[in-house]
Amino acid sequence: MKLLYPTSLELDIKSLEGFSVKLQPYDVKSPLPDSDLDADILVTWTNSPSNLSDAAKRLTNLKWIQSLAAGPNDVLAAGFDPKKVTITTGSGLHDHTVAEHTLALLLVAARKFYEMRDFQVQGKWPGHLGGPQPDRPKGKFTTLRDAEVLIWGYGNIAKALQPHLTLLGAKVKGVARSAGVRNGIEVYGEDKLPELLPKTDALVMILPGSDSTRHALNAERLKLLPKHAWVVNVGRGSALDEEALANVLEKGEIGGAALDVFEKEPLPEGSRLYKAPNCVVSPHAAGGRPQGAEALVAANLRRFLANQQLSNVI
Amino acid sequence: MKLLYPTSLELDIKSLEGFSVKLQPYDVKSPLPDSDLDADILVTWTNSPSNLSDAAKRLTNLKWIQSLAAGPNDVLAAGFDPKKVTITTGSGLHDHTVAEHTLALLLVAARKFYEMRDFQVQGKWPGHLGGPQPDRPKGKFTTLRDAEVLIWGYGNIAKALQPHLTLLGAKVKGVARSAGVRNGIEVYGEDKLPELLPKTDALVMILPGSDSTRHALNAERLKLLPKHAWVVNVGRGSALDEEALANVLEKGEIGGAALDVFEKEPLPEGSRLYKAPNCVVSPHAAGGRPQGAEALVAANLRRFLANQQLSNVI
Repeated sequence: MKLLYPTSLELDIKSLEGFSVKLQPYDVKSPLPDSDLDADILVTWTNSPSNLSDAAKRLTNLKWIQSLAAGPNDVLAAGFDPKKVTITTGSGLHDHTVAEHTLALLLVAARKFYEMRDFQVQGKWPGHLGGPQPDRPKGKFTTLRDAEVLIWGYGNIAKALQPHLTLLGAKVKGVARSAGVRNGIEVYGEDKLPELLPKTDALVMILPGSDSTRHALNAERLKLLPKHAWVVNVGRGSALDEEALANVLEKGEIGGAALDVFEKEPLPEGSRLYKAPNCVVSPHAAGGRPQGAEALVAANLRRFLANQQLSNVI
Repeated sequence: MKLLYPTSLELDIKSLEGFSVKLQPYDVKSPLPDSDLDADILVTWTNSPSNLSDAAKRLTNLKWIQSLAAGPNDVLAAGFDPKKVTITTGSGLHDHTVAEHTLALLLVAARKFYEMRDFQVQGKWPGHLGGPQPDRPKGKFTTLRDAEVLIWGYGNIAKALQPHLTLLGAKVKGVARSAGVRNGIEVYGEDKLPELLPKTDALVMILPGSDSTRHALNAERLKLLPKHAWVVNVGRGSALDEEALANVLEKGEIGGAALDVFEKEPLPEGSRLYKAPNCVVSPHAAGGRPQGAEALVAANLRRFLANQQLSNVI
């Protein structure tokens, strides 16, 4: 039995020892050497498309792919067949880092750090953003305390984010395909968006990329948000209609947008979002560093060898 | 009995009713009218120095001043005599807002939002700050998870801040005049700074302004911080030697500094801190909006009328 592990991140390989499995490192940006084509298991992280599509053709003995990314998009695009190869994702490995970045985006928005920076680089003091200020004024998003935060896409990242928001005093609600109470938070179906969006101070989007989520936040739904509301997107860029968003930002029909993901990345030079007022562009920086990868791989490896159900099967 | 309350913030005056006390509004930027000179109690918020020094001379019947600011500096500077007039502060009214802003400063520093902004305004994608990244690399401050955060000045604001940092996975320690365990956090005396500073990833300063705290963070102590460490100051600007800080920032001998308070405010045009690398200038924006002022004034008013000890006496 042979497992190929990527050298694109620092893994503590000692944590994977103890099984009757040969652990073999490989380079995720080159074609696999012939000596590795007998591998049973492939762990992937930031593999190049050509490496993956080459592996899909030549790893004829492969039984299981463990991706360390949150989603399986790159593996599926490479041509692996989920009917023949078990595909498991790194869902959960990015919850903590993405939650931290999302919290940061919300605070940058509420406390207007982007505007402070624009003053600072000109050597100017942004006095209007400091000193005595109204406390939680109606019709403005200035703090998370008492803010109505709606999280659309209420999975593991939302569950990791929510305690931080609640501790800051935010009122958190969720939207997901299936309604219900999760970790004490009321999660509504998408049919309730017309009622929820008009009461939202900050909308956090954590939707996965798929045909069904494409442009989930479109011009029509953007119009339902209050004029002061912020949109934060840390899911997938495709879930948000960027042209529609740029329109409402430029017209001041929305409070602002703090975006970590985009329809095309890098965000193309000349995109209106770079210069739109109250728009914060973050370069897909929320995750990108799996945490606890060894524990997931080791646990799934034990299950695989015992013919048990793996975690995070797509 | 007459209480003068300021019109410089929106107070819910109904919350102060029910006592045998006349509640009279006043303008904090003008001299008091003759008809108010019989006041027994003065509530202050963002009063002009001339208003306060005029009040100190002419309010000959005054027995108690309730400031809504965190400290009594402006009241004392106006010439009120704490031996003749009881002075109470708004300590506690700013804990939540200052804690939120401090958390934001730490996240802006760790996630480098200031650098992202500099790219964005040029229409450029800061690709080096996004995508796959090393997880918690040694010798860098990139996340609060597992970061060693030292809070110098461990009072109510620190106690409000600490749960947010702990929830994000930071290892929090404190420094204060008196050592001991507070809310489960080990707080050391200042004599331990030479041992603590070299192990610190982020130093949060929440020291009050006084002769004894002047330049508490000086060139000598800055040298003890690791090269990647950040300094966050939300206490008083006087507690930090700005020239010494600008020197280490410009030489790259420190990770960065996120400052909400300055030796002189507004920070003068031409200050090196505006342009120093990895320096975040925030315009004294952390607090400035007392929360729960009515409850504090009402509780103290009841105690005052019952001849009981007031809260927050200086």
